[in-house]
Amino acid sequence: MRRAVSDHRNQVLELVRGAWQRRLAGAGAVQTVSLAGAVQRVLASDIAAPVSLPPFANSQMDGYAVISGATGSAGATGSTVEFDVAPPVPAGRAAGQLPPGCAVPVMTGAMLPAGADAVVPVEQAVPDSFAPFEPGRRVALPANVPAGQFVRAAGSDIEAGALALPAGTVLKAAQLGLLAALGIAEVPVLPRLRVLLLSTGDEVVAPGGTLGPGQIYDANTTLLSAALAEAGCEVVSGRILADAPEPFARALAADLDRFVPDLVLSTGGISKGAFEVVKQALAGDGTVRAAVDFVSVAMQPGGPQGIGSVLGTAFLGFPGNPVSCLVSFEMFLRPVLSTVLAVPAPRTVLNVPLRLPAGGTLDSPAGIHQVRRGWYNGAAVLPMGGPGSHLVHALARSNALIQLPEDLIRREAGQNVEIWLL
Amino acid sequence: MRRAVSDHRNQVLELVRGAWQRRLAGAGAVQTVSLAGAVQRVLASDIAAPVSLPPFANSQMDGYAVISGATGSAGATGSTVEFDVAPPVPAGRAAGQLPPGCAVPVMTGAMLPAGADAVVPVEQAVPDSFAPFEPGRRVALPANVPAGQFVRAAGSDIEAGALALPAGTVLKAAQLGLLAALGIAEVPVLPRLRVLLLSTGDEVVAPGGTLGPGQIYDANTTLLSAALAEAGCEVVSGRILADAPEPFARALAADLDRFVPDLVLSTGGISKGAFEVVKQALAGDGTVRAAVDFVSVAMQPGGPQGIGSVLGTAFLGFPGNPVSCLVSFEMFLRPVLSTVLAVPAPRTVLNVPLRLPAGGTLDSPAGIHQVRRGWYNGAAVLPMGGPGSHLVHALARSNALIQLPEDLIRREAGQNVEIWLL
Repeated sequence: MRRAVSDHRNQVLELVRGAWQRRLAGAGAVQTVSLAGAVQRVLASDIAAPVSLPPFANSQMDGYAVISGATGSAGATGSTVEFDVAPPVPAGRAAGQLPPGCAVPVMTGAMLPAGADAVVPVEQAVPDSFAPFEPGRRVALPANVPAGQFVRAAGSDIEAGALALPAGTVLKAAQLGLLAALGIAEVPVLPRLRVLLLSTGDEVVAPGGTLGPGQIYDANTTLLSAALAEAGCEVVSGRILADAPEPFARALAADLDRFVPDLVLSTGGISKGAFEVVKQALAGDGTVRAAVDFVSVAMQPGGPQGIGSVLGTAFLGFPGNPVSCLVSFEMFLRPVLSTVLAVPAPRTVLNVPLRLPAGGTLDSPAGIHQVRRGWYNGAAVLPMGGPGSHLVHALARSNALIQLPEDLIRREAGQNVEIWLL
Repeated sequence: MRRAVSDHRNQVLELVRGAWQRRLAGAGAVQTVSLAGAVQRVLASDIAAPVSLPPFANSQMDGYAVISGATGSAGATGSTVEFDVAPPVPAGRAAGQLPPGCAVPVMTGAMLPAGADAVVPVEQAVPDSFAPFEPGRRVALPANVPAGQFVRAAGSDIEAGALALPAGTVLKAAQLGLLAALGIAEVPVLPRLRVLLLSTGDEVVAPGGTLGPGQIYDANTTLLSAALAEAGCEVVSGRILADAPEPFARALAADLDRFVPDLVLSTGGISKGAFEVVKQALAGDGTVRAAVDFVSVAMQPGGPQGIGSVLGTAFLGFPGNPVSCLVSFEMFLRPVLSTVLAVPAPRTVLNVPLRLPAGGTLDSPAGIHQVRRGWYNGAAVLPMGGPGSHLVHALARSNALIQLPEDLIRREAGQNVEIWLL
């Protein structure tokens, strides 16, 4: 009995949510990091503003700070009013009291002198540019300036004590900029999910090694390490384990002790063949305390899946082909990470026309959710390679996954398909 | 005379392209990095496949490898043919010659014995499961198996010597997985753009410090460092320089010597006020050999912009407000980095309805490209805060930039606007 893609994703959701809650309940889960180290991290608690923004009333323009009332009363001749020009307020200094009858030159962002409640832009003054301060200078400004004109009131962006950012906020440039503006140099962030990555197979050789007959290079460790890193996880180890149940189980138990991961992710060894190391090692033969279901999901590629726990740690088993691994990651683990951990951002989903040779079709077995790889050129998507799970070069030339759900058995050229942008 | 946004972006494009070409022409521009260190880097040269993928013909199923011709000739009784079961091919070992009259158990991915040209899935065999090898076992397989059935031919994904990935490819999980599958452990990648980041102003204090009267915290270094890092640049230094032309010019010259950046990016000090340190220092007074245009772009916020070179290094000057900095980065620098360096990926652009109180409008001055910040909830975008460039808290609660181009002076609730997803 095959399991639906959505059902399996829900089970992965429960698994990862449980692992994450155990991690958060553990000691030292929340980390305090500098702003520079907090890019793409998730805020662990609400942050209240320690100061108001702006911290003080300041000018929105280069101009003259005045008491608005003074522009509508004594000294008005026609449409302008004359003021003595007081010394300017230097940036970064306290502004004193506005001297009576004076206008004070202020640059954008400078603190308003006490008493001033409006700014007249220098372009509206006569003369319409600043000159070095000297006693006796006068300036003519428009009459009847409204109170508050070109003034940024203290706290008009946020008041001290107000919620600046809620827990769960993903910290990107704007959010980190706000924290810096508030004077906050370090923030509490949620930990990264720790993933122990295991490849299996006597036939796999690490890149850089030499292939013997019948051997292939291990693509999965590299592929999934990169995918997990891009998704904000911490890969605590990625290695190839021997393709026999006993040594596999021993090495896994040792790695669990050493790395204390939140999640174990293995590749390969879970299918229906005669030599399926992960399945054999975790089948509950007493070597390892494990409760893993080996199931068949109605998905192609990536049908065989393992899910459960090993020695109390959450466990996912992906199939051994690199394309199956990537599809399994994108269909099951990545969306769940987005939901549970707030990072990574979900994939962009589009409905776009299918590009095929005239009369061509894209066919998918009934009852199977087929995931094809394709190249989206901004207007339409062209399938790359066939459905085969060994086509890693075709995958590498793709920038999208084409979704052909269970009830969709054929799409023709020009018909719309759902794609997920990689 | 205000400059159009697109004209300024084109000038930034020329500036960054020139800086990048000088960098690439320099010694040691191309770096060789491990696959684990190559995530989101850009391939510096074409990569040819050193081996074929798959390296050898292998089975697509768990089943029996046979000579297809043998299933259509002698030994056929009705719809099936009987074979002796030969010892299985262990994973990672060379498969020998297929013995005459035999079928060889093969697991998915295992090398086909020499002579075999087809695989019969175990489900179609009688018996339909594998048993441990012993001499004398027989298996009945369907007659007339077509040649090539369930065989992945050597080189069917990519042939040795063919182009695996072209120069300029952005290396993500799938591309790195392909390189690993090809046995390649290190790749030549393009360098990161080195950016020297400078904040100016006597009024700015680094986060964590104590504010005096009239002072504010420096948000720009944090905000732009994060934005540049997310965009794949290397920020070689980010510091606050004194707000006087002479010390600013001296410190800048020293930093250029020390860090040898590709691009200098300053914030603040380029407007029309009486104290504009960047403008004064780089106005060609002899202190620093500079050729910088200080221009006014028809954009709000972010109108004042500086562009040119300082001591032969490309220079951009953004205005001093954090919101203006982010908007300047997103409108000018980030799209240019995407074009010239291939990373980051361009922002997703959507046309979505505007969410406003009933009867509300979003107004933009004629002839000015206004960039508002907003929250896109998946269906519509709600403006956050007003147009003011000091509203960094409103920016931090936004996930989109709302574009109101020069000729657009009003949008009403429910009308569509273009947004860029942050």
